Amino acid sequence: MSLASDVLDAARDRGVLIATAESCTGGLIAGALTEVPGSSDVVDRGFVTYSNAAKQQMLDVRPQTLVAHGAVSEQVAAEMASGALSHSDATMTVSVTGIAGPGGSEHKPEGRVCFAVANAFGISTETVEFGPLGRHRVRAASVDHALRLLLRALRN
Amino acid sequence: MSLASDVLDAARDRGVLIATAESCTGGLIAGALTEVPGSSDVVDRGFVTYSNAAKQQMLDVRPQTLVAHGAVSEQVAAEMASGALSHSDATMTVSVTGIAGPGGSEHKPEGRVCFAVANAFGISTETVEFGPLGRHRVRAASVDHALRLLLRALRN
Repeated sequence: MSLASDVLDAARDRGVLIATAESCTGGLIAGALTEVPGSSDVVDRGFVTYSNAAKQQMLDVRPQTLVAHGAVSEQVAAEMASGALSHSDATMTVSVTGIAGPGGSEHKPEGRVCFAVANAFGISTETVEFGPLGRHRVRAASVDHALRLLLRALRN
Repeated sequence: MSLASDVLDAARDRGVLIATAESCTGGLIAGALTEVPGSSDVVDRGFVTYSNAAKQQMLDVRPQTLVAHGAVSEQVAAEMASGALSHSDATMTVSVTGIAGPGGSEHKPEGRVCFAVANAFGISTETVEFGPLGRHRVRAASVDHALRLLLRALRN
């Protein structure tokens, strides 16, 4: 809650509007930000793109990127964050796509999560191996990490 | 978790794909559904339409409906659920718009939450007065209620 508040305060100070693009976290980043009273002046919207069709239709993720790198990849995370920027009024976006488990998929291990943050100046991406913590903990750790990435970008 | 599992099982049995359209719950309904392993065969996507601009741009909520009835109204909930149906691959959608608090707004009391469930056969709407439970509890009660509405619709 206080991390979400810090993100909102930093965004408010800089006049930044935020949108989220979430796959494995399924809406929980937007949920964490909007838990804070008064978040409506910073949170524009969220895209929960759980299916590949949703990633393509809502965020313009390219089919060839999905095929070449898989849904859990920095390339897809980058396209999700970029798509959220162009399909919203937000000036900063964060995206998450990962293997929450249980078990791996796409030949990738449970706990691998890819993130991207985008604004008008560019996109940064990152992969974190949280390890096989179980679905609930991987998702919670991913929400926390996404909020820290936003905070770092806002303070840059 | 077990309520979300029940919704997923009932949807799976009937070949139903679900999308969510969330305002005051900010992604938590999608978050609850996707907490269940294997939810990806039922959950298509979620729209977190926190701002009025997002409601209009993502879900075709009409400006005149927002002006005439306010964002927290069964009319807006109905348009959100209907918009989610036409902007997704889902065959059943649920929408939520409410006053999570603290305090009232739009001359409406804290804890008033409007819901809609839509499928090819129509849209049903409902308003619940949860009362001034505080932001966290109003949101949690709204998630729970939305899941129960989906379950009821799926068992009809």
